[in-house]
Amino acid sequence: MSFNTFGRALRFTTWGESHGPALGAVVDGCPPGIALTETDIQPFLDARKPGTSRFTTQRREPDEVRILSGVFEGKTTGTPISLMIENTDQRSKDYSEVAKSYRPGHADYAYDAKYGFRDYRGGGRSSARETAARVAAGAVARLIVPSVSIRGWVSAIGGDVIDEANFDAEQIGQNPFFCPDAQAAARWESLVDKARKDGSSLGAVVTCEATGVPAGWGAPIYAKLDADLAAGMMGINAVKGVEIGDGFEAATLRGEQNADPMRPGANGPDFEANHAGGIAGGISTGQPVRVRVAFKPTSSILIPVPTVTREGEAGEIVTKGRHDPCVGIRGVPVVEAMMALILADHFMLHRAQCGG
Amino acid sequence: MSFNTFGRALRFTTWGESHGPALGAVVDGCPPGIALTETDIQPFLDARKPGTSRFTTQRREPDEVRILSGVFEGKTTGTPISLMIENTDQRSKDYSEVAKSYRPGHADYAYDAKYGFRDYRGGGRSSARETAARVAAGAVARLIVPSVSIRGWVSAIGGDVIDEANFDAEQIGQNPFFCPDAQAAARWESLVDKARKDGSSLGAVVTCEATGVPAGWGAPIYAKLDADLAAGMMGINAVKGVEIGDGFEAATLRGEQNADPMRPGANGPDFEANHAGGIAGGISTGQPVRVRVAFKPTSSILIPVPTVTREGEAGEIVTKGRHDPCVGIRGVPVVEAMMALILADHFMLHRAQCGG
Amino acid sequence: MSFNTFGRALRFTTWGESHGPALGAVVDGCPPGIALTETDIQPFLDARKPGTSRFTTQRREPDEVRILSGVFEGKTTGTPISLMIENTDQRSKDYSEVAKSYRPGHADYAYDAKYGFRDYRGGGRSSARETAARVAAGAVARLIVPSVSIRGWVSAIGGDVIDEANFDAEQIGQNPFFCPDAQAAARWESLVDKARKDGSSLGAVVTCEATGVPAGWGAPIYAKLDADLAAGMMGINAVKGVEIGDGFEAATLRGEQNADPMRPGANGPDFEANHAGGIAGGISTGQPVRVRVAFKPTSSILIPVPTVTREGEAGEIVTKGRHDPCVGIRGVPVVEAMMALILADHFMLHRAQCGG
Amino acid sequence: MSFNTFGRALRFTTWGESHGPALGAVVDGCPPGIALTETDIQPFLDARKPGTSRFTTQRREPDEVRILSGVFEGKTTGTPISLMIENTDQRSKDYSEVAKSYRPGHADYAYDAKYGFRDYRGGGRSSARETAARVAAGAVARLIVPSVSIRGWVSAIGGDVIDEANFDAEQIGQNPFFCPDAQAAARWESLVDKARKDGSSLGAVVTCEATGVPAGWGAPIYAKLDADLAAGMMGINAVKGVEIGDGFEAATLRGEQNADPMRPGANGPDFEANHAGGIAGGISTGQPVRVRVAFKPTSSILIPVPTVTREGEAGEIVTKGRHDPCVGIRGVPVVEAMMALILADHFMLHRAQCGG
Repeated sequence: MSFNTFGRALRFTTWGESHGPALGAVVDGCPPGIALTETDIQPFLDARKPGTSRFTTQRREPDEVRILSGVFEGKTTGTPISLMIENTDQRSKDYSEVAKSYRPGHADYAYDAKYGFRDYRGGGRSSARETAARVAAGAVARLIVPSVSIRGWVSAIGGDVIDEANFDAEQIGQNPFFCPDAQAAARWESLVDKARKDGSSLGAVVTCEATGVPAGWGAPIYAKLDADLAAGMMGINAVKGVEIGDGFEAATLRGEQNADPMRPGANGPDFEANHAGGIAGGISTGQPVRVRVAFKPTSSILIPVPTVTREGEAGEIVTKGRHDPCVGIRGVPVVEAMMALILADHFMLHRAQCGG
Repeated sequence: MSFNTFGRALRFTTWGESHGPALGAVVDGCPPGIALTETDIQPFLDARKPGTSRFTTQRREPDEVRILSGVFEGKTTGTPISLMIENTDQRSKDYSEVAKSYRPGHADYAYDAKYGFRDYRGGGRSSARETAARVAAGAVARLIVPSVSIRGWVSAIGGDVIDEANFDAEQIGQNPFFCPDAQAAARWESLVDKARKDGSSLGAVVTCEATGVPAGWGAPIYAKLDADLAAGMMGINAVKGVEIGDGFEAATLRGEQNADPMRPGANGPDFEANHAGGIAGGISTGQPVRVRVAFKPTSSILIPVPTVTREGEAGEIVTKGRHDPCVGIRGVPVVEAMMALILADHFMLHRAQCGG
Repeated sequence: MSFNTFGRALRFTTWGESHGPALGAVVDGCPPGIALTETDIQPFLDARKPGTSRFTTQRREPDEVRILSGVFEGKTTGTPISLMIENTDQRSKDYSEVAKSYRPGHADYAYDAKYGFRDYRGGGRSSARETAARVAAGAVARLIVPSVSIRGWVSAIGGDVIDEANFDAEQIGQNPFFCPDAQAAARWESLVDKARKDGSSLGAVVTCEATGVPAGWGAPIYAKLDADLAAGMMGINAVKGVEIGDGFEAATLRGEQNADPMRPGANGPDFEANHAGGIAGGISTGQPVRVRVAFKPTSSILIPVPTVTREGEAGEIVTKGRHDPCVGIRGVPVVEAMMALILADHFMLHRAQCGG
Repeated sequence: MSFNTFGRALRFTTWGESHGPALGAVVDGCPPGIALTETDIQPFLDARKPGTSRFTTQRREPDEVRILSGVFEGKTTGTPISLMIENTDQRSKDYSEVAKSYRPGHADYAYDAKYGFRDYRGGGRSSARETAARVAAGAVARLIVPSVSIRGWVSAIGGDVIDEANFDAEQIGQNPFFCPDAQAAARWESLVDKARKDGSSLGAVVTCEATGVPAGWGAPIYAKLDADLAAGMMGINAVKGVEIGDGFEAATLRGEQNADPMRPGANGPDFEANHAGGIAGGISTGQPVRVRVAFKPTSSILIPVPTVTREGEAGEIVTKGRHDPCVGIRGVPVVEAMMALILADHFMLHRAQCGG
């Protein structure tokens, strides 16, 4: 049993493999009457697009999205929105080695164990190319909650963390790392270059914040806003950890240190801190919703790793081809998309039960 | 819209408030023919039960479970299993302060913002008492995957981490902290005592490992095993972070450091490391499935915190009553239960699609 | 895989067997702030209750409902509402024959084929006693859509159809058949008496109409209002057919005969007919929603029927015990309950997507 | 909230409008390793294809399906199968009348009431063209349960019922009506011709039978096999009634007449009748699963019908264009497809819970 659908009220289904003819998403449940054209979606795909700097994979994909349904005279109709992105640069190469041997850290062995065989071209369905479909769906989701503002950035690469004192939102779009700290961005250039030249890869942390989320979104107990964010983020390729607010740091604190004291405010209470990351009891508090996401270094490296073949023989594997030296970088638009999709879903879920 | 059901093939629904007459779970989808009586469930409830040491809340609840349906002549019938636990120690106290003011860090304000009002007695539905129902359901789940062995422990309290070199599984049941490191347990005794006496609270980290999980469980893309674990764990009261395998540590590594090299083994490949925590591409690899869960310090402290009233006036609140100085401790059986429920679900999901 | 949950936004889960200690429903997603006590539910259970006339089973069950969660200070809180009904009259009898042989027309053989064994006491989970839980849940649903008025009646027994010209809503509550036609009710008395004395049973048709449903409820394509009604009604014990509006009669007509001409009206169009039963394209039109439901004669009869034993040997079976001579009669409150639950669900689904 | 996904273990999502660029289905959960190419699907689309005789709409659509994902080297991979059918004959015509006025019996008014506006070209999403996507998905489903044989036919048109004594399965493919009774087919030719020439339309009944379904499929209580069939069939455009087995006829019988006596058989019991249509308690009995489906006459007729405009003014409407004089005819492949999809789903659901 396979689940390629995410969400409850706003639901999207993705399909497609790395080297198939196309990939896409069907967005179901979108409210009617929202202005939508391809130009609302394309910028987000462009932000995720490979090949824009030497710090990402050199696969060249225009990632042009086409809306096939659900829009009439420029507005959403309330019926499913089918989005398609054609694959154009499935470079013909020799996959015999990947077909034969398992790349440690990849899904190769797990897919074989589950399904008996696998589409080994570029990782098939397990490729991060699938996230293009989420980014396209996420662009639609943003339009459903226009008062919410979502912004993600890379907050660490290879253990080199940004300095919060240097945080400058303007910087995020001005370097190839989605980095808000100009000094860190300068350091990362050589850091990632070195990893790339070594044939290695680097892990990263992505932080994402949504402002403008009103208090009251979230569906306890088993569709809590934080639980849904955890699922959505952990399901992104290469992600191994998710934190809401202070996350693991909170586990080192005492209660009074971790408190977010409240003060009378103009619209509901003001909070003097946001250790909680904007969520209490699985429900938004009106503070910024903040999540941190850990990306492992990609397993696609030129440094040989011991492995086994499908037939169980010992060997070594080197993953040639066009790979991201730090997949976390291009993870930023994906994390933002998942944030948008989950918030739009919870906006609608809340409206279902509580009106308004 | 509210979602008090979790799971896809094996699904459980919980209900009940902290100070209502009872709470319970309905477990749906359990395979037929499994021997089940209350005695299979009670030990897990006893492990979670409050009042067993001075390091947990002094509320006295026997937490005796009753099976109301789904079992005939000692075996599951394949129909829903209704489990009920009566509340017996809803101590009559004065809730006027909690009714009037919001406890920072609690769900009080968020519930009010969402629903317009709330059952303020003991936190109502947002109370961690709800987790008793999950623990009961989890005991059923364990019987569905009897070859899987699940073990959780506290690996840090208030930032004081166990020493892996001292790990001794036998220790876990021999101290009030589910601590596998006898030296750490000794230190924690004074640490938690101090927090308790200060009227404060401490955060903790719980680690949980499942062995005996075969390769191939997991439902890509949007019901990946790790994504479901992230959702299940993040939805536990007070949890703010979840890691699979090395988690955030992986984000600091290079690809070759994070690799889990494979070697020919007797039953499928052997792995020389388990940075991945037993999951690749959202599917189990046959290695132990390992998750780490961060619990914040409970917000129920005797140290005054600034807050606002329902009417928006400034004030301070002190949360009197019977509270856990470190909620992470009693989180261990809950984390284990969620692990069991998710693995049993994926066992069934895998069987649906792939047979066997 | 078992599904004991129905609904999407308003969801209810039922549990319990005919001869277990209790049965119940958990209603999830109910909007907050609705006044609710047991007295809002009990009258509907009383209408369905067995033993109220000689035309229903003589099993005596008070069917007293208890609300165990989800209500605080007399109002729904938005959290799951747990409803429990204890079984009190599980008459001790000898089930050895039913345990050994399959009753044709019952679920006995099918349950054994599916699950390997079954709770044979009173039919276990397949007993129509389960519908008490739906009726209780339905009473909650009615409160969610208070402007909708739902009324069901028996429109035929054993092929003897009421005369629409005699339709008098007042009559429905004044005879033991929920019959709106006093003359038909008089005829049915002897008809059902004869079947009962013969040890036989009779089929029936139940009609149900909901007025006050605004135009626009329904979720195309795969949660159409009529499709959900079909599922909900066909899932009631003994039901074999469902019609919306004219149903099978429409299949005999020409387009112009089946048209529901529209005329300008005060609030949207007026319709000059309602062949469609208030639903077009799976969405309500603002006309009364009308459904007809066919109940087969119960298979529990005193007339011997050839059958086989669990071991595959030939035999005959006579179903002794306390049975309804015409299960369709007590089907009326159940059909009404399903109508209420589905409409409340669609009210909320519509609000999720379209607001308002 | 919109639901364009159907199924639980095998799930398909459809998208597309009558006059958009394309329509399609994403089939999720298909077991891996099944041989699948477009040629497995095309014949079923051809059977449903318009324009094959004068008794169906003259819109010319090749309805060529393309598999965009989920298949590798000719076999299903277990990942979502994306199927796309391009629209080629969206004849440019003047839709101003339909845009302005509501066609009684169509979804026009209901869609406007729900969504505020609608894609009026050819009915948009409410067009029966959507069923092409189901037929494509159904072809995949058949391959999942290869031992099940599914056959549908038209059993009545405009009230003219086939004579069961003339039933000849060979005939079904040899006339333009999917009619198993050669004499009825001859009569229907003039009947449908007359309706067509009159600018009118006719209702029809489709019967569908699945043989080779083992005992034990079905998921009580709220995903009963018959309830799912009822939902699946009632959700087909123009359907107003569904019966399992004897359906409404059973409501006229006495218990002994409706019994399906059992006799010892080679593989489980033999049944001496099949009033139940192969389902008891929502679970298959091993007998043929039989369903009857009532299609109303299409509302697209040339005979003027009183209506209102969007602005609420009185008028009359004549639905010009290319329409089926009897939509039930082309309903046969759609009914078969839904039967296949539901049975494949229940095969997988059963395997999830009960193994095997």
